[in-house]
Amino acid sequence: MSKEVNSESVSLCPLSTTAATEQEMLCIFGTGDLGRSLGQRFLQTGYKVVYGSRRPHSCGPLPPGTQAMSHVAAAQSARLVFICIHRENYDFLETLAPQLKGKVLVDVSNNLKKNMYPEANAEYLQRLIPGAQVVKGFNTLSAWALQNGPSDANRQVYVCGNSLEAKQAVIEVATKLGFTVLDRGSLTAARELEDFPLQLFPEWRLPLKLATGLTAFFFFYLLIRDVIYSYVVNDKDVSFRIMASLANKVFPIVSLIMLSLCYLPGVIAAFLQLYRGTKYKRFPDWLDRWMLCRKQLGLVALALASLHVLYTLIIPIRYYVRYRLAAHTISQIRENKTSPFDTTMAWRTDSYYVIGILGFGLYLLLGITSLPSVSNILSWREFSFIQSKLGYLTLFFCTFHTYLYGWDKFLQPSSYKWFMLPGYMLSLVVPSVVLVLKLLLLLPCVDGTLTRIRQGWERTDPEQERKKLLLT
Amino acid sequence: MSKEVNSESVSLCPLSTTAATEQEMLCIFGTGDLGRSLGQRFLQTGYKVVYGSRRPHSCGPLPPGTQAMSHVAAAQSARLVFICIHRENYDFLETLAPQLKGKVLVDVSNNLKKNMYPEANAEYLQRLIPGAQVVKGFNTLSAWALQNGPSDANRQVYVCGNSLEAKQAVIEVATKLGFTVLDRGSLTAARELEDFPLQLFPEWRLPLKLATGLTAFFFFYLLIRDVIYSYVVNDKDVSFRIMASLANKVFPIVSLIMLSLCYLPGVIAAFLQLYRGTKYKRFPDWLDRWMLCRKQLGLVALALASLHVLYTLIIPIRYYVRYRLAAHTISQIRENKTSPFDTTMAWRTDSYYVIGILGFGLYLLLGITSLPSVSNILSWREFSFIQSKLGYLTLFFCTFHTYLYGWDKFLQPSSYKWFMLPGYMLSLVVPSVVLVLKLLLLLPCVDGTLTRIRQGWERTDPEQERKKLLLT
Amino acid sequence: MSKEVNSESVSLCPLSTTAATEQEMLCIFGTGDLGRSLGQRFLQTGYKVVYGSRRPHSCGPLPPGTQAMSHVAAAQSARLVFICIHRENYDFLETLAPQLKGKVLVDVSNNLKKNMYPEANAEYLQRLIPGAQVVKGFNTLSAWALQNGPSDANRQVYVCGNSLEAKQAVIEVATKLGFTVLDRGSLTAARELEDFPLQLFPEWRLPLKLATGLTAFFFFYLLIRDVIYSYVVNDKDVSFRIMASLANKVFPIVSLIMLSLCYLPGVIAAFLQLYRGTKYKRFPDWLDRWMLCRKQLGLVALALASLHVLYTLIIPIRYYVRYRLAAHTISQIRENKTSPFDTTMAWRTDSYYVIGILGFGLYLLLGITSLPSVSNILSWREFSFIQSKLGYLTLFFCTFHTYLYGWDKFLQPSSYKWFMLPGYMLSLVVPSVVLVLKLLLLLPCVDGTLTRIRQGWERTDPEQERKKLLLT
Repeated sequence: MSKEVNSESVSLCPLSTTAATEQEMLCIFGTGDLGRSLGQRFLQTGYKVVYGSRRPHSCGPLPPGTQAMSHVAAAQSARLVFICIHRENYDFLETLAPQLKGKVLVDVSNNLKKNMYPEANAEYLQRLIPGAQVVKGFNTLSAWALQNGPSDANRQVYVCGNSLEAKQAVIEVATKLGFTVLDRGSLTAARELEDFPLQLFPEWRLPLKLATGLTAFFFFYLLIRDVIYSYVVNDKDVSFRIMASLANKVFPIVSLIMLSLCYLPGVIAAFLQLYRGTKYKRFPDWLDRWMLCRKQLGLVALALASLHVLYTLIIPIRYYVRYRLAAHTISQIRENKTSPFDTTMAWRTDSYYVIGILGFGLYLLLGITSLPSVSNILSWREFSFIQSKLGYLTLFFCTFHTYLYGWDKFLQPSSYKWFMLPGYMLSLVVPSVVLVLKLLLLLPCVDGTLTRIRQGWERTDPEQERKKLLLT
Repeated sequence: MSKEVNSESVSLCPLSTTAATEQEMLCIFGTGDLGRSLGQRFLQTGYKVVYGSRRPHSCGPLPPGTQAMSHVAAAQSARLVFICIHRENYDFLETLAPQLKGKVLVDVSNNLKKNMYPEANAEYLQRLIPGAQVVKGFNTLSAWALQNGPSDANRQVYVCGNSLEAKQAVIEVATKLGFTVLDRGSLTAARELEDFPLQLFPEWRLPLKLATGLTAFFFFYLLIRDVIYSYVVNDKDVSFRIMASLANKVFPIVSLIMLSLCYLPGVIAAFLQLYRGTKYKRFPDWLDRWMLCRKQLGLVALALASLHVLYTLIIPIRYYVRYRLAAHTISQIRENKTSPFDTTMAWRTDSYYVIGILGFGLYLLLGITSLPSVSNILSWREFSFIQSKLGYLTLFFCTFHTYLYGWDKFLQPSSYKWFMLPGYMLSLVVPSVVLVLKLLLLLPCVDGTLTRIRQGWERTDPEQERKKLLLT
Repeated sequence: MSKEVNSESVSLCPLSTTAATEQEMLCIFGTGDLGRSLGQRFLQTGYKVVYGSRRPHSCGPLPPGTQAMSHVAAAQSARLVFICIHRENYDFLETLAPQLKGKVLVDVSNNLKKNMYPEANAEYLQRLIPGAQVVKGFNTLSAWALQNGPSDANRQVYVCGNSLEAKQAVIEVATKLGFTVLDRGSLTAARELEDFPLQLFPEWRLPLKLATGLTAFFFFYLLIRDVIYSYVVNDKDVSFRIMASLANKVFPIVSLIMLSLCYLPGVIAAFLQLYRGTKYKRFPDWLDRWMLCRKQLGLVALALASLHVLYTLIIPIRYYVRYRLAAHTISQIRENKTSPFDTTMAWRTDSYYVIGILGFGLYLLLGITSLPSVSNILSWREFSFIQSKLGYLTLFFCTFHTYLYGWDKFLQPSSYKWFMLPGYMLSLVVPSVVLVLKLLLLLPCVDGTLTRIRQGWERTDPEQERKKLLLT
């Protein structure tokens, strides 16, 4: 839409006073796929395009309406030069330094891997041609977006550069192409922009691996305990339980463990600070990394909890469950006995479900507030209120839900098949530890010390401490 | 809140060094409803306001504390002039060109329809008064927000203009009024800003129409097949099935078809590129338009799938279902027979439900990542991973879910009533075709060629190809 | 990640032409906890840091690699000075005015309460040192983020200030530290930035209080009616109903009432405008405040509605329900009677569920569109279409759902226990009133007048009206 509008407005108001709108000329260095796509897009938006090429007369098919020249000639005909060349070939640009002086060079390059070079491509370019104004930009877009204009995940363009005016010129082009531009500051941000398109969920890997590992472990554990045991000892084939019943045990177990793993590092960090008596020592690396993926841990746990909810809600429409209920009713009639209504049982199961629902509700709330647009409008006081207070409440509800599930079965020896504990008991270990440790931290004496430490207070003689600090 | 704060800070710190905060004067041209609302809001924020009017002494009630002057006098008393006049009346402004020279003119106008004029209002204004610095802005706000300050969907203000300083001055006013400002670049973006308030879900129309059409078709199809057939042939009134049972067949059918329609255009495009041997030819218009509404197609399908989930989950609390289950149990007892437990049936129904749940879970994930704030933080590598890989997985799960539903009923002649196939069979056609075509595209030889084409490679003699390209 | 990248790029490209990247020196006034945390972070990002202190030789442990000087000396060694001092101690800075002239002063301070001082800290600072360029910033970050760099809810930094270049310098530092920066305009926005970290869901308080009050009231009301009545009159202990059955009555009742309270103020406002014959009089304060928390009212109501859905969906897996169903089947067999299938009953319950599902679906849609990132991309025409048209449709569906629940029980005297009406009847009062009033407003004659008023038209003699307006 924007494309159409812009091109029209250009062709229909030739009297406009802005020089920028009168078919400005843009220069592209490089006639490869990237250069051709970009050039075509510029043309459609109403720009004139000139290509700079080593072999201007044999550089392959270019978009109709453009022309190829030598680099020197092309550079002189435009103020903005888009560098669509691989970084490996940048060095020849050094010879063009006089022609490129004062020009805005837009570095759209990406690398194939992270950390291939000691400095960002754009910084390297700036070093080669100190007289030019290098702007990094457009590199976070997909090829599709570069060729066809903004689409869904490609609406936002990041630029960075040391010159305000140069950035402004590039922002104007990007806006005309229909993109929303975000200024990321000086050229030092170029490295970040160049790494961005290469990443594939880096912070999600650890949580996903953990979830996969735990799921696999508990699946086989419960497979042995529930299905194979039954087959070997009772000679009963209950393999159909794998699809729904077993999964509905594995998911909540893994979910609860992962939820508690979100809160464990915070508790460990607090005890570490208490032990050290200062907050000015860095945490060990593994703790830092753990703390950085808490959000992802929590969201994976939420996904598993949601599956648990859906699996639970389909229980009454499952054939197996309907069959068992009917069989129970039939046997009651045939044996002509009536089981009396058990009020304790009613209380127990209702509480169990209700605590689970409330826990899941809070959990969803935590998930919603971790949406970027929601967490952005929260002050950190609000954010920490939700993620910490409500987070621990969620953990408490979910743990309590599991304890209610166990009820009085904890001490029944009949539930220990082949010396294997029921799965839910295993899942209670970590959350219970976390909740107990958190309770300890809330004791007034401990809480007071911790608060003081977090406000900058340090234990022991400060003079001695300072020396130690200076030595590290 | 911000309003209050700003007005206070103005009145309480008169020693502030910024001239901008000392009751700056703003000029408004036009004393209609828009001008009056805007003026009132300026007053409340701590600005002084002067109106420019043709008949300064009989221009109707103005906000108390403001005054009306002739256009010439009003223009001279302020640096910023807000033009609250209909575009039809802009031409008289040309006579004020000398007085408006160097002023910042804020064009807040909107049109009643798209494309009423060849150029944007703001560009027309700039052409009339070349010496002024025209800034487009505020026009995307509702009248309510203009009068009362920012509220929910009215927090963001877009501005565009050719002069950086002029924009900065307008941004300052908007920020003081409590809005968040987004700079959309030069004045060429004005057209887009002017079209924005006129649109009413333009990209949603096609998907919604399609959903309505498909829903209506399958509703009547199944009405005949399930309800009317039963009434005519078996003389049984099952009209109550319309509310829940029938809807719960229509929704998943339409949802699955629409989900597969999200992926069909991508597959068609790939085959088109393979056939043409190049990616440099534009797709036909219908394909382009289809591809642009894929997200909306998918979200409508997700909404229908969610309804399907809720409809399914209420099955066991429906009177009809409870009655039937009880009747079945009672008949078993009265006839004194016992149906044995059918392990295959247990496997089959459980698999059917579980695949459905997993498909829906993935579907929800796709929906969440299409939230603007989430897709913005994804790199396009991540976005395409989710939308393409996970998308096809979702389609596969949902299709497989439907096949499991059919199971061995595909070849039962008893399910062909009045020669009408069951609805779910019809729904399987498009998804199956999409999945098969996608599988073909994943064959190594096809995939390799396609990848090369998408990297810019072109089939056949490039010399000949270039000539063809130059001729088109 | 960004931290690592930035520090590397600094150390590895010392030839970079940008002065900004060559170990720029930053000055921090104040060696308290805030100053030390900030300094450590600067060091890690590749800056040099110097502290200004009253007692440079005994100011406690500083991050290794930094040095402390007198304020005068420190100020001269850097262009940017971060003021990490409590506002109470700002006054001594006045004596440093000559040294701070032309410097960029970054005010990162916060207050303990709102409105402690007549002007914002940053404005006070600017007044003390008129020759400096004060920029407010970083104050919305948590201590954790200041010390360790951006994390989840701490990615966004707001700055404001009167000097564009000063802001640019601060934005550059913030970007290098890894934050995303949002320019909030001139220094008058400082007050808002300083209030931001102090707020704890201000707009949520009223809705949450209301929800708590209504929930408590209906809980005790229904406790008496359902549980205590049964105990006293029938001598039956149904206390187990408290956990699930009772809650599942309270939640939908409160949810429906709160949903209707979202739409009541809009209706009241319309009638007020009709009565007054003008839109230029401000609404009473209570109405304004009510209208401002409509979104929060609606979201709390949505949360309660979601709980209602979950509570309803677990009905068939509850022990009590299963017991009762089995008991019913058993009694039917023992008494050897068959209850015939009741088509009306099937229609009624299905309609009841289906209308509820559709209402909840629309409700979720309203909730999704109130996510900031979604409402931001909607034009206000679209937003008001959803929130108004779809909103009233949602209210209608939910009200109708409740009426269907009542069905023919409205006039049954047996449902009036101890003269107490069933809860759902009470919940119908407000929504019914709102819907009837809205219907009245949609009558052509009323709608026409209202539209004219909202377009600025005023009733009665305008001359007289203007006089009245001028007098107020």
